[in-house]
Amino acid sequence: MAGSSLGTMFKISTWGESHGKGVGVVVDGCPAGLPISEAYIQTYLNRRKPGQSKYSTPRKEDDHVEILSGVFEGYTTGTPISMVVMNQTQRSGDYSEIANYYRPGHADYTFDSKYGFRDYRGGGRSSGRETIARVAAGAIAMAILDSLNIHVNAYTQSIGPITIDRANLNLENIMQSPIYMPDLEASAKAENFLVEKMAECNSVGGIIECVVKGMPAGVGETVFDKLDANLSKAIMSVGAVKGVEIGNGFECATILGDENNDALYYEDNTLSKETNHAGGILGGMSDGTDIVLRAAVKPTPSIARTQHTVNKSNENIEINIKGRHDPIIVPRAVVVIESMVALTLVDMLFQNMTSRLDKIQEFYKK
Amino acid sequence: MAGSSLGTMFKISTWGESHGKGVGVVVDGCPAGLPISEAYIQTYLNRRKPGQSKYSTPRKEDDHVEILSGVFEGYTTGTPISMVVMNQTQRSGDYSEIANYYRPGHADYTFDSKYGFRDYRGGGRSSGRETIARVAAGAIAMAILDSLNIHVNAYTQSIGPITIDRANLNLENIMQSPIYMPDLEASAKAENFLVEKMAECNSVGGIIECVVKGMPAGVGETVFDKLDANLSKAIMSVGAVKGVEIGNGFECATILGDENNDALYYEDNTLSKETNHAGGILGGMSDGTDIVLRAAVKPTPSIARTQHTVNKSNENIEINIKGRHDPIIVPRAVVVIESMVALTLVDMLFQNMTSRLDKIQEFYKK
Amino acid sequence: MAGSSLGTMFKISTWGESHGKGVGVVVDGCPAGLPISEAYIQTYLNRRKPGQSKYSTPRKEDDHVEILSGVFEGYTTGTPISMVVMNQTQRSGDYSEIANYYRPGHADYTFDSKYGFRDYRGGGRSSGRETIARVAAGAIAMAILDSLNIHVNAYTQSIGPITIDRANLNLENIMQSPIYMPDLEASAKAENFLVEKMAECNSVGGIIECVVKGMPAGVGETVFDKLDANLSKAIMSVGAVKGVEIGNGFECATILGDENNDALYYEDNTLSKETNHAGGILGGMSDGTDIVLRAAVKPTPSIARTQHTVNKSNENIEINIKGRHDPIIVPRAVVVIESMVALTLVDMLFQNMTSRLDKIQEFYKK
Amino acid sequence: MAGSSLGTMFKISTWGESHGKGVGVVVDGCPAGLPISEAYIQTYLNRRKPGQSKYSTPRKEDDHVEILSGVFEGYTTGTPISMVVMNQTQRSGDYSEIANYYRPGHADYTFDSKYGFRDYRGGGRSSGRETIARVAAGAIAMAILDSLNIHVNAYTQSIGPITIDRANLNLENIMQSPIYMPDLEASAKAENFLVEKMAECNSVGGIIECVVKGMPAGVGETVFDKLDANLSKAIMSVGAVKGVEIGNGFECATILGDENNDALYYEDNTLSKETNHAGGILGGMSDGTDIVLRAAVKPTPSIARTQHTVNKSNENIEINIKGRHDPIIVPRAVVVIESMVALTLVDMLFQNMTSRLDKIQEFYKK
Repeated sequence: MAGSSLGTMFKISTWGESHGKGVGVVVDGCPAGLPISEAYIQTYLNRRKPGQSKYSTPRKEDDHVEILSGVFEGYTTGTPISMVVMNQTQRSGDYSEIANYYRPGHADYTFDSKYGFRDYRGGGRSSGRETIARVAAGAIAMAILDSLNIHVNAYTQSIGPITIDRANLNLENIMQSPIYMPDLEASAKAENFLVEKMAECNSVGGIIECVVKGMPAGVGETVFDKLDANLSKAIMSVGAVKGVEIGNGFECATILGDENNDALYYEDNTLSKETNHAGGILGGMSDGTDIVLRAAVKPTPSIARTQHTVNKSNENIEINIKGRHDPIIVPRAVVVIESMVALTLVDMLFQNMTSRLDKIQEFYKK
Repeated sequence: MAGSSLGTMFKISTWGESHGKGVGVVVDGCPAGLPISEAYIQTYLNRRKPGQSKYSTPRKEDDHVEILSGVFEGYTTGTPISMVVMNQTQRSGDYSEIANYYRPGHADYTFDSKYGFRDYRGGGRSSGRETIARVAAGAIAMAILDSLNIHVNAYTQSIGPITIDRANLNLENIMQSPIYMPDLEASAKAENFLVEKMAECNSVGGIIECVVKGMPAGVGETVFDKLDANLSKAIMSVGAVKGVEIGNGFECATILGDENNDALYYEDNTLSKETNHAGGILGGMSDGTDIVLRAAVKPTPSIARTQHTVNKSNENIEINIKGRHDPIIVPRAVVVIESMVALTLVDMLFQNMTSRLDKIQEFYKK
Repeated sequence: MAGSSLGTMFKISTWGESHGKGVGVVVDGCPAGLPISEAYIQTYLNRRKPGQSKYSTPRKEDDHVEILSGVFEGYTTGTPISMVVMNQTQRSGDYSEIANYYRPGHADYTFDSKYGFRDYRGGGRSSGRETIARVAAGAIAMAILDSLNIHVNAYTQSIGPITIDRANLNLENIMQSPIYMPDLEASAKAENFLVEKMAECNSVGGIIECVVKGMPAGVGETVFDKLDANLSKAIMSVGAVKGVEIGNGFECATILGDENNDALYYEDNTLSKETNHAGGILGGMSDGTDIVLRAAVKPTPSIARTQHTVNKSNENIEINIKGRHDPIIVPRAVVVIESMVALTLVDMLFQNMTSRLDKIQEFYKK
Repeated sequence: MAGSSLGTMFKISTWGESHGKGVGVVVDGCPAGLPISEAYIQTYLNRRKPGQSKYSTPRKEDDHVEILSGVFEGYTTGTPISMVVMNQTQRSGDYSEIANYYRPGHADYTFDSKYGFRDYRGGGRSSGRETIARVAAGAIAMAILDSLNIHVNAYTQSIGPITIDRANLNLENIMQSPIYMPDLEASAKAENFLVEKMAECNSVGGIIECVVKGMPAGVGETVFDKLDANLSKAIMSVGAVKGVEIGNGFECATILGDENNDALYYEDNTLSKETNHAGGILGGMSDGTDIVLRAAVKPTPSIARTQHTVNKSNENIEINIKGRHDPIIVPRAVVVIESMVALTLVDMLFQNMTSRLDKIQEFYKK
């Protein structure tokens, strides 16, 4: 089935494998008149590139984006925008070993179960390189949101046991932390923790938080295409994510109704909420306050420790995964989460435009 | 936008408001040849009906389902199955008060923001009664899964601070607990906790866990329509859910790679896993082991305590919500979560049938 | 597969069989604020009811529509509108004969091939009664178009060999002709032809033309969701239609480029075209002039003449179809074609609203 | 809106403009295990390349396809297949003139109406080069159909007033006729007609017919996603097509019921039909006999004759379109129609696989 597309009115279709010729995306439904350049897209891709810090693989992946269609004289034309990042080195190597066993925590076994065989070079379609396409498309979504004064910021909330102190949270810190933590004190501690676990040939998980400011109220559909439902799908579709929560999320299960409800009040003619446990979404629609959500990211499954698994001859074996792998996925995934949120918001903003007849009449009045 | 449909190959479209003429669902894409009766659907609806225990509203809602199409001589025909539950009492009442203010934790304000006005009688489209349609459709999905030897069981994992002890977890306990907890000791404690909070006119949240047994490996699509992504959307689309996790979920963020990876092994020619942190899903596809997921459910927002909010004249006011409301949503939502999981699994099982050319050739061989 | 839904932003899902409990439709994506009543919908349904003239079956089908959701205090709320027409007489009869053979020109054999069995009472899902749902939904689409000053008119262009003379074409004649022909002279001739063929127990086909006035330019998507492509699908999905053409349609295949091109010119600052061979659509988008299209409708397949066919025991047999069948489908299908056009136009108008960034910015400006 | 995708289970998304960097397509939902090569795809593209005969533009467009993903060791992997044809010469030229006026019969005016501006170099997205993407994807669909013993053949039925004589129709003639006519006598006449009209700087239309052999019965969905409805959309979405008909099409409007019905009979235990006016489709489902359909293709709108039109300064002007344009679109469109039919058939075959529970149970039996 065709599961490589996302969105209804603002739709992306991605393609490409880690060790094929490249990865890419077609963005369909981008409105005409948006200024876009390869240089702009590249700034987003650079945030997920490996080798940006010592906490990511030192592999050389100079991901250079090329726009093949849909942009004319610097502006989008309203037609599909095709973007491609060619794989610069056809990483050949010897994959005969990896082809014959199933790596724990990877999709090797499930791919073989589904398709009967798999592209065994690297992760194939389930490689982290697939997220290049999401980020390239996400950059376009971010530009649309920016033009509407809506701003999306994701950052590392925790790495293993180290969590940010909200008293120290400052979005301006994000780009100063090599692991994109908005609390530089926690960042330093987390870096130490990472160095320690890297030395042990182990890997680490963490939590990414994302905040959206400036979202108008009433966006999201009321039953299945709820804003939070579509955000959850988008975020859970990122490879290593195993949990999603909106607002206070799982905490809501442990507190009482009078604590959890966000009281409304007017101050200076502006509607506000005393708290934001709802994370800016009620009944599947934005309520005009900050949207807040979190994604739990598992530790990198590829580790250089001995692991038990099976091979395709139905034998129990021991393996040691070689190569240079990220000790943690979280920092490079921050821009991926940001992208998935942006892509979803644009689609829901677009879908929302036909909610009221008076607005449609105004749109088409002659 | 049309956000009241879910699914691609097995699709449901729901309609209806809490205080309108009724609620219903059209199930499109149900295969021909499935035995279905109103009595069977009713057994599922009865599990979400109010008044089943003292922990739910004593409101009388005798939800009787009627099948209007798609079933002939006891079997589905392959055409759309329309089911309706008429609202038996057109609850009139005086809604002038509720029409003028925004209840905290409810979708009143967001509805008005989106549509310019709202059906202010009860929750309208965002009422819990909307889930009747999900459960009626879910019952059909469960029957399909049953015919494929796939079994879905949801239950209450925790209520407020009271959580089941996995040593006591027994699926056969579920129907013996008035709050659907599979650990009867925890159930008794949770009931005491509920009684206490009800006396304080407060409400309580909790967590629902769902386990799927018998799922074949390789089901789910590899990028956006991942099995876990679509499950997350389906579950987060249920009104009061604020968090979703697969397998160990948020716990994965705090443990190390060698702890989190599930080692594979063969025993008696059967592939097994030493652990199931992945919750039965890798790379967005089922791995043949139990699928495990959890949903965080917020406390009922309607409470009989004084709350601060605003009215439509932009004034700050105090309100006391009257009426008979559930002190907790969790028990009645158990069958809703089960339904959303079942609906998603059927859709993904159907989508998966075109993954391999050899299987398609076999299907169409003459 | 779920093939009973149509539309992306304005979506309908239909259900029901000719001899089941009823037929109905869920309209999802109707904007809030549209005044709608059962009486209004009924005026459209009455146009397709049988027994309106001597050229349709005298069967009594008093199709009374009921709105079950989505309308509050006379206005649409933005939530799904569920409409149902119950079958008033559960027509029992003896279907054992029809159950055992395949009627020529009907979907009996294909239904059995697809589903393994069929609801053999009447046409089941492929009955003309299925179009009730299309017309009820179409009435809502017409109300939206009306509010935008867009007007859709369909009429009978030809019946068998009798075609209207365009010199006599007057839309005001349509409702005065029992067969909805806008040229009353041709209508009289066609009525005579029909009477003659009815006496011979035969049936007749014809062509329905549809004209849309007031459509803004630029509506339609540029590649697959072209306005003409989606109109063709909508129209060809009506049971008895075997051909669709836009503008001069098949005639374009026989004339030369300089004849076929529509020259543009300005007169009194208004852009006009010397001809309209394109039928108001260029490159899949409306050009601001009248949209013109035609549907070829086959003769009613149920005729009271001896026909050759086969039964389910693989025997060659002769049959005589009893019962009261329309001698011609065309007049009752006029409002169905009008509905399919209206449904498509609304969906495309809605999809078009995100074509330009400046318009989106204006929509969301705070 | 995102109108550049087609299909549900077998989905294509196209991109690219005539004078941009290239055109391409992502095929999502192709099953794993299909042998595919660039050389194979190229054979289809070569059939639509210009310069294959003196009846097409002598422009040099050496369309070379490259497969970027989804194929591993010669077989499809089940993941998206991305194919690209780069535009070899960045045709610069001076477009200032064409940028300022609207060519009759082209989408210039409608593009500007929709998007506010357009890529004025050549036809942009509405250029015939967009069909390259359809044909590359269609080649994959043809390979799938071939593996199921289903065969699709399109050919030129008529050019201007010259129509094939069905007595002379031989599919083996198609590739021997430079204009793909299966009746070589008619082909010679049509060539003379073309030469004559080319000398007059005019252009010519025609009709393409397509026949599908080997289609199993029961494929197609019963209401909106009827096989003929989806075929009509696919074919009408091809730029120059203005009419579509199934079986006898518009002829059905002029004949009587007893003539139009196709009588069924058994001969040698094989079900047959005395005629095939239905074109192999009844009730929207294939009936197991040949599927027959036709598309009316308009004359090339670009002609070197003086034409009246308007410019963007609202002035009436005269133009002469320069450049080397095809005098007829039909022959190069034959493989495009074949592709659109193949793409639709594969999607409908895939959707059909969940029609019966017993077949689903067999598919998933352990």
